[in-house]
Amino acid sequence: MSSNRGVVYVGPGKVEVQGIAFPELVSPAGKSIEHGVILKVLSTNICGSDQHMVRGRTTAPAGLVLGHEITGEVLEAGRDVETLKKGDIVSVPFNVACGRCRLCKEQQTGVCLNVNPSRAGGAYGYVDMGGWIGGQAEYVMVPYADFNLLKFPDRDQALAKIRDLTCLSDILPTGYHGAVTAGVGPGSTVYVAGAGPVGLAAAASARLLGAAVVIVGDVNPARLVHARKVGFETVDLSKDAPLGDQIAQILGVPEVDSAVDAVGFEARGHGHEGARHEAPATVLNSLMEVTRAAGKIGIPGLYVTDDPGGVDKAAQHGSLSIRLGLGWAKSHSFFTGQTPVMKYNRALMQAILWDRIKIAEVVGVEVITLDEAPKGYAEFDAGVPKKFVIDPHGQLPKAA
Amino acid sequence: MSSNRGVVYVGPGKVEVQGIAFPELVSPAGKSIEHGVILKVLSTNICGSDQHMVRGRTTAPAGLVLGHEITGEVLEAGRDVETLKKGDIVSVPFNVACGRCRLCKEQQTGVCLNVNPSRAGGAYGYVDMGGWIGGQAEYVMVPYADFNLLKFPDRDQALAKIRDLTCLSDILPTGYHGAVTAGVGPGSTVYVAGAGPVGLAAAASARLLGAAVVIVGDVNPARLVHARKVGFETVDLSKDAPLGDQIAQILGVPEVDSAVDAVGFEARGHGHEGARHEAPATVLNSLMEVTRAAGKIGIPGLYVTDDPGGVDKAAQHGSLSIRLGLGWAKSHSFFTGQTPVMKYNRALMQAILWDRIKIAEVVGVEVITLDEAPKGYAEFDAGVPKKFVIDPHGQLPKAA
Amino acid sequence: MSSNRGVVYVGPGKVEVQGIAFPELVSPAGKSIEHGVILKVLSTNICGSDQHMVRGRTTAPAGLVLGHEITGEVLEAGRDVETLKKGDIVSVPFNVACGRCRLCKEQQTGVCLNVNPSRAGGAYGYVDMGGWIGGQAEYVMVPYADFNLLKFPDRDQALAKIRDLTCLSDILPTGYHGAVTAGVGPGSTVYVAGAGPVGLAAAASARLLGAAVVIVGDVNPARLVHARKVGFETVDLSKDAPLGDQIAQILGVPEVDSAVDAVGFEARGHGHEGARHEAPATVLNSLMEVTRAAGKIGIPGLYVTDDPGGVDKAAQHGSLSIRLGLGWAKSHSFFTGQTPVMKYNRALMQAILWDRIKIAEVVGVEVITLDEAPKGYAEFDAGVPKKFVIDPHGQLPKAA
Amino acid sequence: MSSNRGVVYVGPGKVEVQGIAFPELVSPAGKSIEHGVILKVLSTNICGSDQHMVRGRTTAPAGLVLGHEITGEVLEAGRDVETLKKGDIVSVPFNVACGRCRLCKEQQTGVCLNVNPSRAGGAYGYVDMGGWIGGQAEYVMVPYADFNLLKFPDRDQALAKIRDLTCLSDILPTGYHGAVTAGVGPGSTVYVAGAGPVGLAAAASARLLGAAVVIVGDVNPARLVHARKVGFETVDLSKDAPLGDQIAQILGVPEVDSAVDAVGFEARGHGHEGARHEAPATVLNSLMEVTRAAGKIGIPGLYVTDDPGGVDKAAQHGSLSIRLGLGWAKSHSFFTGQTPVMKYNRALMQAILWDRIKIAEVVGVEVITLDEAPKGYAEFDAGVPKKFVIDPHGQLPKAA
Repeated sequence: MSSNRGVVYVGPGKVEVQGIAFPELVSPAGKSIEHGVILKVLSTNICGSDQHMVRGRTTAPAGLVLGHEITGEVLEAGRDVETLKKGDIVSVPFNVACGRCRLCKEQQTGVCLNVNPSRAGGAYGYVDMGGWIGGQAEYVMVPYADFNLLKFPDRDQALAKIRDLTCLSDILPTGYHGAVTAGVGPGSTVYVAGAGPVGLAAAASARLLGAAVVIVGDVNPARLVHARKVGFETVDLSKDAPLGDQIAQILGVPEVDSAVDAVGFEARGHGHEGARHEAPATVLNSLMEVTRAAGKIGIPGLYVTDDPGGVDKAAQHGSLSIRLGLGWAKSHSFFTGQTPVMKYNRALMQAILWDRIKIAEVVGVEVITLDEAPKGYAEFDAGVPKKFVIDPHGQLPKAA
Repeated sequence: MSSNRGVVYVGPGKVEVQGIAFPELVSPAGKSIEHGVILKVLSTNICGSDQHMVRGRTTAPAGLVLGHEITGEVLEAGRDVETLKKGDIVSVPFNVACGRCRLCKEQQTGVCLNVNPSRAGGAYGYVDMGGWIGGQAEYVMVPYADFNLLKFPDRDQALAKIRDLTCLSDILPTGYHGAVTAGVGPGSTVYVAGAGPVGLAAAASARLLGAAVVIVGDVNPARLVHARKVGFETVDLSKDAPLGDQIAQILGVPEVDSAVDAVGFEARGHGHEGARHEAPATVLNSLMEVTRAAGKIGIPGLYVTDDPGGVDKAAQHGSLSIRLGLGWAKSHSFFTGQTPVMKYNRALMQAILWDRIKIAEVVGVEVITLDEAPKGYAEFDAGVPKKFVIDPHGQLPKAA
Repeated sequence: MSSNRGVVYVGPGKVEVQGIAFPELVSPAGKSIEHGVILKVLSTNICGSDQHMVRGRTTAPAGLVLGHEITGEVLEAGRDVETLKKGDIVSVPFNVACGRCRLCKEQQTGVCLNVNPSRAGGAYGYVDMGGWIGGQAEYVMVPYADFNLLKFPDRDQALAKIRDLTCLSDILPTGYHGAVTAGVGPGSTVYVAGAGPVGLAAAASARLLGAAVVIVGDVNPARLVHARKVGFETVDLSKDAPLGDQIAQILGVPEVDSAVDAVGFEARGHGHEGARHEAPATVLNSLMEVTRAAGKIGIPGLYVTDDPGGVDKAAQHGSLSIRLGLGWAKSHSFFTGQTPVMKYNRALMQAILWDRIKIAEVVGVEVITLDEAPKGYAEFDAGVPKKFVIDPHGQLPKAA
Repeated sequence: MSSNRGVVYVGPGKVEVQGIAFPELVSPAGKSIEHGVILKVLSTNICGSDQHMVRGRTTAPAGLVLGHEITGEVLEAGRDVETLKKGDIVSVPFNVACGRCRLCKEQQTGVCLNVNPSRAGGAYGYVDMGGWIGGQAEYVMVPYADFNLLKFPDRDQALAKIRDLTCLSDILPTGYHGAVTAGVGPGSTVYVAGAGPVGLAAAASARLLGAAVVIVGDVNPARLVHARKVGFETVDLSKDAPLGDQIAQILGVPEVDSAVDAVGFEARGHGHEGARHEAPATVLNSLMEVTRAAGKIGIPGLYVTDDPGGVDKAAQHGSLSIRLGLGWAKSHSFFTGQTPVMKYNRALMQAILWDRIKIAEVVGVEVITLDEAPKGYAEFDAGVPKKFVIDPHGQLPKAA
């Protein structure tokens, strides 16, 4: 039991499965922590934000163990853990949060003040997020376990629905946060930029929230086919027709009530020519065009403070040329930041357990082995309409 | 076109279809009003609150023209009407509201300050609600038409979905208001007291809002059968098993997140013996038992200030023996009052037009002629699981 | 340092200062708890809800150590405590809360699910609230210290303002919760029933929240004099003039936007005769009369599930004859329950530290020694317009 | 009575008082409107956004009658006006709003859909805002009068407080909207960029909302002196010390809870050198630096879609180089757009009438005659710490 293996970032474009240390109840700073647990990882997903690191678009160092989307079984608990015991099946919010600072108390666990010396907010297996070891591995340590972990009420039910429940650690709450901050509710018309897993999760969330109609836009034809298959309207951003016109063909009007940016800083331009190039402000500027007056724009897509691979000097420092005057004229509001997963995961778990949302089907969950992780990274990077879920112990069903 | 016929309250237990005056652009006080329209009524529903009057449980005078759930076609518009024209199909919120007072400006149209000299809030065809003539008739007048009316975007689409859209004037927003004030959202567990149309509309609304599971309770077996048929869990309140135990059989725990009182002051007791007698505080007291700590209780069910038929002196003055100490210990909040329909009807219209809610099926819409209205009143009073929709001009499809 | 003395409930009408055990890092169930701290108590206030126990209106057993309004200095911290150290000055919210359950995560610390086996919600030194030992003592233990405690930023500043800061443990947040749930904001007109410390704290909170005018009502002439002295309008409920008329003399209209019940279940009737007798539903029924349509009613005043001294059988089980029909006609909402202190105490601390609220002056703080506590209880019970603050170690200034 | 005079934009840098047409109950499109009133203007303020036009930074045509901050007396009312009569003293929200469209019903009167054919939202005397004639004149017409106007409860009281009440038409609600959207509440620490009238109104609003401390920043020394005189902390942006450092000197930490941009697109840079040049993104970028994680940024300062005088091509089309990556890392939210005055003006009127806010003193109201308007424009443009209020009929007191 004291061996461990995990997915390690080796250099731009390259990840490997390597032997890594078995987790201990110790913080990144080396302090012993009795509030933590060691988890046997049941499932751990590859995320689009992992790709930013692997593509070399961040300052992630070689040797970093990846993985912040983790579902597991409690193997061992520190002395201060009160509500969890060996054998419990739990979902791990990707944010590491202390449960004791002002922001955690206000449900802002995405910007916890105590888990990362360099800035607000921590995460597992992520550059600049506090040094917590990633969970694309056989075993992982979770601190502040009573606070952080969401325990599934029934072990057998949890294992039976694990392909859906694995989406609670990040992707579903992140899409949901985008939809909620965009003001989606019963009867809303919604546009989601990006048909990758976050976009699809935002779309599924909008549907759960009662949206009348959800439109997803992308330049990737396979992703658009998949989005239609799981029930959403789509617009093809590689076409030259303006986005507003494409929306009007569906809704009768060129604007929506709510818009979600599920793309972030690596956006490409619109249209036949534009789609070939990176154009980091395109998504936000187009969302201001197609969002109605007094509408809200949720921005779960990642924007970074520093991007060594940015298209220009401004982009390299996280600055974008935003048409704020347009948003101002329409009284828009804008919501950014890491999703505080804990604010949403319990409600979304209930929606999964009572069959109100089929998130695995919507995002295209495909289970792979730990050794297949590098291949998963490569395929995901190539744009397949799939959400890869690593099964480090071979315990998950391969298909739904 | 200058003739008119409507459903008239004649005395306790009795309504008749009689010739009535053709509507004019004149207020109850006799003032000419250029902001009103005359509607040709396309559909107008019988409501449980009409029953309170017909049963003689209010001070409604004989001769009152009934009907506050109205959908119609604009026949004539006053000079100040700007956004509507002859031929538009519109839904009429049951609240008469001026659009100019402080409370209308704050979306509290259920307690408009200008349309009823005796208290806050007005309605069509209802005792003590301002003297506005009811709409269970061929034609009706609607004041402040630009403000009050919800225009359907497309005439043909509206006529095709009229059995659902007719529920926008009261029943659906009222159920929805109950669910919203009860705090229902994605993942909620919900209990709705009462399987009549308001209860079913609350249940359907809870589902639209993303509730994980919705449980409906009643003593009427036919209504429970119907509730199950349209997809809800049920508990039978005529059984002697405590409500909490029945809920626990479904949820595993004896409490829900959110509770809705869709019964009101004519409630009956629980259990085999209790169900035979009126017990006006039963519903609220039982909701405090089964609502979890920090839960919310929405009360769309009507409670009145004066009830000549109340079971005792206190009830006759609207006082009930409420176990407030229990609610306080659980940090409950309570939300009462007429639904401000306008706050919700546009969003709910969108949900209907995009097929997100099948409200006609859920509440059991049955279309009848104007002449069948008295029979409809009698059957509804007997507890059939139907929502009767009067079709004064014979223009609606009889079946879905 | 291992000796301790505290205020002990001996029997109806009687409290004594006795030697009690020095606190240990052990839960009421006997479990060792590394997340707790031992505090040297700097100030600890006598509360109106202590009076309910001392009057024999609860099932509190003889021997109970009283006190849930505590401010102290950290003397010793358990191994799991990370954010506090010896010498820190802290405010203790009266609610004991775990910081790990669903409700604590949602800021509902007043109904924490893990600190009281018999119901939701715990408190120090209080019957049926989990068995946590009271803090009207020299020393006290606080569990889940990182989560529960509010640390003052500067020790000297804290000591200089301790007469105000001592109000953060209960009285100020409780009054504030009443005002917030009553919907008070800039420009509101507010009526607060009860000119005791909770009422005055609600009034001061309403002023901080921007209320245009705050009216306080009571039957106690000394309290009314004090309320006027600290800047509030008053109405004398021992007069026979209806409350609405008295309000109209101040506002021009007989209704307010927001109302707060700062009295609770031991309310007396209104008017010359009424004020002599307990009439538990009087306050709520009168608030419905004087609150405008669509107004909100905050109920921080305590209502209990069981009251051995209740005026009748219903009251003894926490049932009151509430005129719900009136509230319903006016679309009122009602908010009950223990205040979740942590939701508010940090903001209120800031308001005190920056001199935006003079709460000690408003509630009439009077510092007494531990040995004077029994006298303080007696005087407070007699209705003096004071808030007694016990200074167990003789470290506080006697006067402001 | 049929003569009229008003302030007219003649060309860049130049306004004149000219004879203009007496207002009629007619819309800009020439339609007769029975819902309007003619007002005798009692007071009408010069606004910073008027300056944008006068400086030639917009496409405003010569001949435009200026003025959107209007308080007046009803002289004549159309047939459809029900709640107002000759002699009533009223405040005019600067937004023209219909009270009948979806957005007006949702309190979004800043983007009314019916009063401006070219975009959402209308205003008096403003380029591209619907063609409604300005009110820096003796007389002006207000449409949808029952909906738009706020009537003061007492004529004499209104005239006595007119210097404060004149701020209700725009400046106070606009500052208040900034503070509210920035999340200001009791205990907040607040930074307001800009010590002009909007900034000072935001600061005063923050204080009314209970803020612990309010810091105002500007490069203009006279404005900073005035800001301190009326009770705010200040930072001098013409100094080279970083803003965060200057804030830390006041608060002990370099960040605030809430930030307000009361500057807009004509911002200058920070520091000795920067302050000499226009740098339109400076304010927003600096607010992201000094706002804490999970903080909110209210943006009442105007950003435009087209700015002929912009510093570069991007700025000329309303695009700014925003450091969005920084805001995203801190989970900021951003709120833009014209203030929906009606959402706030009644509450703020109450705060004025009950002496809770001294807005005239805070913003430096100075009453001038109509003929002095051009001089007022020039002085205001030069940066004097005053808010000029035109008194077209010589009825106002010159000094407080």
